[in-house]
Amino acid sequence: MYLRSMISVSVIGSGNVASHLISAFLNSTSCKLIEVYSRNIDNITHLEGAVSITNDLKALKPVDVIVIAVSDNAIKDLTQNISLTNTLIVHTSGSVSMKVLKPHKNIGVFYPLQSFNKDKKLNIKKVPFCLETNLETSLVLLEKLGSAISNQIYFIDSEQRKKIHLAAVFANNFTNHMLYHANEICETHNIPFDILKPLIRETIKKIKTGMPLESQTGPAKRGDIETIKNQQKQLIDSQLEIYDTITKSILNTYKING
Amino acid sequence: MYLRSMISVSVIGSGNVASHLISAFLNSTSCKLIEVYSRNIDNITHLEGAVSITNDLKALKPVDVIVIAVSDNAIKDLTQNISLTNTLIVHTSGSVSMKVLKPHKNIGVFYPLQSFNKDKKLNIKKVPFCLETNLETSLVLLEKLGSAISNQIYFIDSEQRKKIHLAAVFANNFTNHMLYHANEICETHNIPFDILKPLIRETIKKIKTGMPLESQTGPAKRGDIETIKNQQKQLIDSQLEIYDTITKSILNTYKING
Repeated sequence: MYLRSMISVSVIGSGNVASHLISAFLNSTSCKLIEVYSRNIDNITHLEGAVSITNDLKALKPVDVIVIAVSDNAIKDLTQNISLTNTLIVHTSGSVSMKVLKPHKNIGVFYPLQSFNKDKKLNIKKVPFCLETNLETSLVLLEKLGSAISNQIYFIDSEQRKKIHLAAVFANNFTNHMLYHANEICETHNIPFDILKPLIRETIKKIKTGMPLESQTGPAKRGDIETIKNQQKQLIDSQLEIYDTITKSILNTYKING
Repeated sequence: MYLRSMISVSVIGSGNVASHLISAFLNSTSCKLIEVYSRNIDNITHLEGAVSITNDLKALKPVDVIVIAVSDNAIKDLTQNISLTNTLIVHTSGSVSMKVLKPHKNIGVFYPLQSFNKDKKLNIKKVPFCLETNLETSLVLLEKLGSAISNQIYFIDSEQRKKIHLAAVFANNFTNHMLYHANEICETHNIPFDILKPLIRETIKKIKTGMPLESQTGPAKRGDIETIKNQQKQLIDSQLEIYDTITKSILNTYKING
């Protein structure tokens, strides 16, 4: 493998992550997007002219890096059908092991830690990319590719990546589900959800300057058992279980006897 | 009672909410802060010169509105010691009934829906205020006072206010506790918490344009039982209970068989 000044890259996939990566690579002056693959060519015909498109894995053009941005359970099968041997092959998944890319010899992970939506613009320069390769020399190449589109590059091994994915479930998926229940309570009682938005924004702004451990407020943090009992009475079963579990966890965290 | 063009107001308290209200009233050109009370006069001596200060409830000056901004369980006792009879007396609590202000005849609630911290600046104009009074005529007065410091005035009865407070526990306290666990997972595995912040910001930005029901992502939303099982194995007991409860709730919400 030789390092030219401009890295050549191809993208496998046409979903949310793939779409954002394709745009980012096309807009970057430090790397060159050569080709995009989709099983269904209709998904990528809009790219024709800007980049070579194909639905034939066996005929992929040789490039420095192939980025596989497809759903977790499709990665393995897809990889087996790529016949290029000198190319660095990476996937973009937070939870899939790098090893599924074997028997390719030059493999890695290029995991953007963000929730992507095809139709929503997003400043990719601020998206943290978690990089890992099996070969030291490939890491230099992958870092160059990452730096071509983002300012936030992290070297993260498979074990840490799993933990990040787990932490993200709490930080993203679970917080969103808390907002879902807040919205449900509002809707049930004819309260505009808008009334809560300044509070939600302030809650999140606090992570800029402080740690969640110190930012905690509310009845459980205060050990205000009377308010907790009153609130328990007002909840429907599905909300009550969440309320009780998290309240218990807050009481335990701050060593308050509930 | 007569309506003058400028409402006169006094504040009882010197805590987080009281401090922000005092600043807001002092800065407003549509109302006049007359007096501030604190049981411990040392807490408010810094206000001397700007406003009259006192630690004697019996000697409060007559004003249009007295705002009681003290901790929930202190409101009732305090109220009994106020001897002014024509003044509108309101408290600022989300969870305390308006009725605790009886036997005063002219009572109400002036509840700012925000998490306040004495030492942190905040644009009070954007804070939603939830107003309620027992007399129709007082509501006009209280609306005027609210509008003097905020652009977001809502008329909310006691029953709705309880529900807002409950929704806020989910939207603020519980989301913060999710961030606490995310941070714990990061710290345990030597991962900088910063790596998650862009994702957290994006999660919250979504409430601007969409509803939490539609924004949900993650293994539970996808019905990805394999990832869920893998993640369960990685959690310590206290986190596992939260993980299981919320995962079950997401599966139920989207009618996915777990």
